[in-house]
Amino acid sequence: MKILDCTLRDGGYYTEWDFSKEVVEKYFKSFNDLPVDYLEIGYRSNPMKEYLGEYFYCPQYVLEQAHTFSNKKLVVILNEKDVREEHVPALLAPCVGIISMVRIALDPEQLSRALVLAEAIKKMGFEVGFNVMYMSKWKQYKGFLDELKYVDAVADYFYMVDSYGGVYPKDVIETMDLVKQRTACKIGFHGHNNLELALINSLTAVEHGAAMIDATVTGMGRGAGNLKTELLLTALNARKDVKVDFNALSNVVDAFEKLQEHYSWGTNLPYMVSGANSLPQKDVMEWVTKRFYSFNSIIRALHNQKEKVEDNQKLPLFQPAKRYAKAVIIGGGPNAQQHQAAVMEYMQRNSDEICLIHASSKNAGSYKGIRADQYFCLVGNEGHRLENIFRGELSHFNGQCVLPPFPRKMGTYIPEAIQEKSFELASVDFTDKLRDSHTALALQTALTLGVQEVLLVGYDGYQDKTITQLEKGLSDENESLFDAFTAYGKCPLRSLTPTNYKNLPVVSVYAYLV
Amino acid sequence: MKILDCTLRDGGYYTEWDFSKEVVEKYFKSFNDLPVDYLEIGYRSNPMKEYLGEYFYCPQYVLEQAHTFSNKKLVVILNEKDVREEHVPALLAPCVGIISMVRIALDPEQLSRALVLAEAIKKMGFEVGFNVMYMSKWKQYKGFLDELKYVDAVADYFYMVDSYGGVYPKDVIETMDLVKQRTACKIGFHGHNNLELALINSLTAVEHGAAMIDATVTGMGRGAGNLKTELLLTALNARKDVKVDFNALSNVVDAFEKLQEHYSWGTNLPYMVSGANSLPQKDVMEWVTKRFYSFNSIIRALHNQKEKVEDNQKLPLFQPAKRYAKAVIIGGGPNAQQHQAAVMEYMQRNSDEICLIHASSKNAGSYKGIRADQYFCLVGNEGHRLENIFRGELSHFNGQCVLPPFPRKMGTYIPEAIQEKSFELASVDFTDKLRDSHTALALQTALTLGVQEVLLVGYDGYQDKTITQLEKGLSDENESLFDAFTAYGKCPLRSLTPTNYKNLPVVSVYAYLV
Repeated sequence: MKILDCTLRDGGYYTEWDFSKEVVEKYFKSFNDLPVDYLEIGYRSNPMKEYLGEYFYCPQYVLEQAHTFSNKKLVVILNEKDVREEHVPALLAPCVGIISMVRIALDPEQLSRALVLAEAIKKMGFEVGFNVMYMSKWKQYKGFLDELKYVDAVADYFYMVDSYGGVYPKDVIETMDLVKQRTACKIGFHGHNNLELALINSLTAVEHGAAMIDATVTGMGRGAGNLKTELLLTALNARKDVKVDFNALSNVVDAFEKLQEHYSWGTNLPYMVSGANSLPQKDVMEWVTKRFYSFNSIIRALHNQKEKVEDNQKLPLFQPAKRYAKAVIIGGGPNAQQHQAAVMEYMQRNSDEICLIHASSKNAGSYKGIRADQYFCLVGNEGHRLENIFRGELSHFNGQCVLPPFPRKMGTYIPEAIQEKSFELASVDFTDKLRDSHTALALQTALTLGVQEVLLVGYDGYQDKTITQLEKGLSDENESLFDAFTAYGKCPLRSLTPTNYKNLPVVSVYAYLV
Repeated sequence: MKILDCTLRDGGYYTEWDFSKEVVEKYFKSFNDLPVDYLEIGYRSNPMKEYLGEYFYCPQYVLEQAHTFSNKKLVVILNEKDVREEHVPALLAPCVGIISMVRIALDPEQLSRALVLAEAIKKMGFEVGFNVMYMSKWKQYKGFLDELKYVDAVADYFYMVDSYGGVYPKDVIETMDLVKQRTACKIGFHGHNNLELALINSLTAVEHGAAMIDATVTGMGRGAGNLKTELLLTALNARKDVKVDFNALSNVVDAFEKLQEHYSWGTNLPYMVSGANSLPQKDVMEWVTKRFYSFNSIIRALHNQKEKVEDNQKLPLFQPAKRYAKAVIIGGGPNAQQHQAAVMEYMQRNSDEICLIHASSKNAGSYKGIRADQYFCLVGNEGHRLENIFRGELSHFNGQCVLPPFPRKMGTYIPEAIQEKSFELASVDFTDKLRDSHTALALQTALTLGVQEVLLVGYDGYQDKTITQLEKGLSDENESLFDAFTAYGKCPLRSLTPTNYKNLPVVSVYAYLV
């Protein structure tokens, strides 16, 4: 039985495939002393439109550096959906002499196309591995099962991937039987850890003849993550199957635990629910890591997906009769509290022509007493937040609650007390992206209220030096929304409080108060 | 199949059995909407010497409060080793009418004594549960197996506890068979999660006829923790076995995840090693949470336990010929860096009669250039730390390295470059506790160097307001060591830098420099 560690490749989903030099060096050097056979270092890929880092492309110097550091067999993987036969020579030429195995990540529906790709890779002299997703659904794909007999000719390893992290040991055995009846290819297993079954599933696969197991240090990997390399090695060591240098193992675990403190991979309630019900974890990962939706909202959204309910509540359209000259939009940044007195004063002075829009209800408590009309944007989680902030006084404001257009992916939660005051937008006009972002909803609400000027408060942005990838993502989103809104040309956008957003003009709130 | 949640009881190992009112209320109210049958709220216990909180004693008002909040059957547990038949009436009288089941946590060696206890409990009208530890070793205990036949008469549930967190599904089946052959009592299973096998072991137990499963929210519990309640419920829900209100589940998970950020329970490499090799996790938990030993040191110590090597390196005794009038001991607090220039200046002025003792090497880098003789205390992890700080220049100091007396529980790691300079203390004379504490070692080193005055630097202590339980533990330790040292009466103890330790007299280092 062989072990393949794919920490850099699969962990890259959290870091956009960038890792510090120190982590990379510690990774390769520690593994030199560990009983692992293959290290999959990343993807090779044609250029993609979004930003993806070093280990997504693995340029030649990266390959060479890995080769210098490591005494293991090295592996890269190709995304079948983005790579065709004709790309192979150029993509893999730099790998010759460095890389031992090339794997292909594929949807089972694309097996015939992948067979062609595999042949081209094999011709260049690499070992070939198929990483086939969605093993829990294979028995439904007759075409796929029929074609398995062609795999022997072109692949050295045929991997079953538990994409949802929802299979149990008995499913592993059953699926292995399906495969073994059709191909003599060596079988591999890549287990996800949503239900904490990655170890037992992997050991079960080995007992039933699997020839290779994937794992990653600390389980780092997309969504809930993978079988933990340290767990597999410790379990095998206790059974006397392998000798383990625990100093080396501990060193590499240490390095990735520090990253984990920052990125927080691993299973949690939303990943458990998606795993147990075979729901894709891509959305869940976005919701968990980026948008800070409550587990409640995520689970409601997952439940909707599972029951194939897109969203079950069609609300009356937001068609306000009232018009305002200006809207102040309150964001979630600390400056909305810091400068609260000034903003309140500014609004009181203009109370006839101005309204308040809460993009997030995070700072809504600070503006409770205001006399102006207020609009609350209810994306995902916000209904619960509002309840927590306002308790009994929830409905005591002039104005309304606004939800994204139907259907809402994240579901609809509206506290009882404001049901009557809640409406949905007909559409988001100034952008076709990010319809479930707080800022998009707030800006569209301002447009619908016919304002001639939008004033932002508490859109602090982040300082470059200390920004995390997550914050950068959110900040980039807002930046692109500001650009889209400005380009849309209906009304100008200004910040009343200090901001790090470069495309946001500032007029200090205090300038209006002199 | 029934589910028992024991979060407050087992989670108390991390919080000393104190939980905030908010957490407790959320716990009981959330569970009112969840398909769980029993809630074990804590221990009932005779007075113990150390501090243990509310849910370790469960006084009457705690029982009544739980009864008010909860619509579930409530459970308390007794530690068999500390409770005898004659204590039962007084311990359990307040439970009558509130508590449904009383469990007994016991070592299998004490089964006959526990049977007597159980009878006394049964007489008071409670359901009785046996929680029997070390299931992986039962087959070695013939006496225990022979007595199992008496269990039926006095117990309603007989729990198999995977104390080490090291059993696999096949072991669960095998042990259940052992039990089922000997008693008709309903079987329960309490799984630990060191190897992430708690779910599969529990489901396996249920498949083979277990009538009750223990779980805790977020797995909170001693060491690596338990089967996660949310994981069990999600898995059962996906199989359509139970209906789950995910709002309620998410609420209670949320409350305990906040605690988890602080206490960090859950498995990690040391817990995996102890689980896989059936080593007690009590020591591991102390090492991981309290002393910040590196995983390396812990794993070495575990390895020593496993191989029954207490410590394999007998060092020459620390018998320094040189004597000093004073020693400065450098601790790990920020003040050791803050006031470094002054301390250096003070030492240069007295360089003939004074030496430097590094209790921790955390601040050793700041004192590298000093001309005075230096002594390094090598507890657990410190050898590695020293290497990281000094790299190539490790041996370039006048002085020696001092280790605790033989045998050393945490093992011995001495960097190659200072092997010749390393010695062990013959004994620690001024205290019989905490021999593996940095401060104890440093103070004993000072005594052995014959000093007449000990001056502490960087023993900052903590401010009461922000102190965590962990910091409080360390601070209490140091405080008791200062008391013991002062009582020993050989030489006075003073701090040169600001300190929050109330029993440490201060003379400002700057007072000596005017």
